[in-house]
Amino acid sequence: MPQRLKLIVAYDGAAFAGWQSQAHRNTVQDALERAFGQISGERTRVHGAGRTDAGVHALGQCAHADMAERTLSPERWRHSLNALLPPTIRVLGCRCVSTKFHARFSAKGKIYRYRIWSAPILPPLEFGRAWHIRKELDFDLFRMTAEQFVGLHDFAAFAANRGKQETSTIRTIQSARASRIGPCITIEFDGDGFLYKMVRLMVGSVARCAVGKLAVETVKMQLASGRAGGPRMVAPAKGLFLVRVRY
Amino acid sequence: MPQRLKLIVAYDGAAFAGWQSQAHRNTVQDALERAFGQISGERTRVHGAGRTDAGVHALGQCAHADMAERTLSPERWRHSLNALLPPTIRVLGCRCVSTKFHARFSAKGKIYRYRIWSAPILPPLEFGRAWHIRKELDFDLFRMTAEQFVGLHDFAAFAANRGKQETSTIRTIQSARASRIGPCITIEFDGDGFLYKMVRLMVGSVARCAVGKLAVETVKMQLASGRAGGPRMVAPAKGLFLVRVRY
Repeated sequence: MPQRLKLIVAYDGAAFAGWQSQAHRNTVQDALERAFGQISGERTRVHGAGRTDAGVHALGQCAHADMAERTLSPERWRHSLNALLPPTIRVLGCRCVSTKFHARFSAKGKIYRYRIWSAPILPPLEFGRAWHIRKELDFDLFRMTAEQFVGLHDFAAFAANRGKQETSTIRTIQSARASRIGPCITIEFDGDGFLYKMVRLMVGSVARCAVGKLAVETVKMQLASGRAGGPRMVAPAKGLFLVRVRY
Repeated sequence: MPQRLKLIVAYDGAAFAGWQSQAHRNTVQDALERAFGQISGERTRVHGAGRTDAGVHALGQCAHADMAERTLSPERWRHSLNALLPPTIRVLGCRCVSTKFHARFSAKGKIYRYRIWSAPILPPLEFGRAWHIRKELDFDLFRMTAEQFVGLHDFAAFAANRGKQETSTIRTIQSARASRIGPCITIEFDGDGFLYKMVRLMVGSVARCAVGKLAVETVKMQLASGRAGGPRMVAPAKGLFLVRVRY
């Protein structure tokens, strides 16, 4: 009897060229497919909830894979996969799901976190895990600007072109919560969907406002325009974390 | 006029073969001496408060270096060194000190932290930064065992031989504070001095007690004996952090 497995996967983005399979094979998807293949002896396709770019981390990426035979329990799959995967990828959870479940198409929303280190010096252990901003940053302005994105908007001005045209650039952001602990600023976006580089483009704009290089009004206008265009700032990949996929 | 600089240095231990200079030159001391040499044009010796082994991290290692001429302000030294050093080493502080100050011999004590991740799975972003213990661990027993080390003791049973004989194996530990946040157990030792691998040997024993593989009485006896001998457990380097050097 065939078996569809749902996986919750965490990874250190610094160790991989992103999620999606590539010719050089140093991606998270490739590592997972290799591990599945080694265990099952079959070529296995792993479908992720979404691609993450090189450098982007995941605390709870979601994926599914189909097995021809129900040979192992989900718990054994988890153990076996982790035994073969590098320590920079961990399968946190694994369970059987209906074949109606699809990691990407069944997703109701995602939660992304972005970390900024606002101080003259970036501690060595934060390297690759936060965006280092040396300039003085107005946190109240940061939080206030971030809140502009909450609600239903046409995010065309906050999407990068991935080659093909997105059918729609309208998305809803349920919340954008910023917090600060010392030099570490964290912002979490909960939304029904995110366009390519959307979180990094939003954070880029918010940060530029917070250091006084961009007016909040400009961000509001860009968001209201529903059109791409104008110079934009993409926050670096290394500060971005895919926290969770909602189903 | 010559100038002695006191440096506070942080580094990611995973990126280096420890503190002390070696032939292959991939150590923290080598990186610092190279950076000093590039700026001053002179061969510069950097003296650390103590060696850290490969994999051991530092949040506040201390070091000093002598400059023939007072060419740069300490602030400029800090900036220039950080511009040349890899991001896995940062000079957090730099100031002029009296030539009576010696990073190693003037030290009054050190604070070390050790991190344990007590859970079935080690998150990818914790890899290299904690000791992963899969077995169930009794935290109250962990804390209680750690407290045995507080006070003045002959730590011969908790020292590795570095080739040469230490003049004395008597040391005083002011405090050994354990705390737990979810799966992450942290223990901080504040002591007047630490023998080679002493923290890792103490943590190894404490952890073995906490998982029920060693009796607390055995640890007490080893500590009271003042003699080396018997099987011992060295906790891995990657969980150890040199927090601060007291002067």
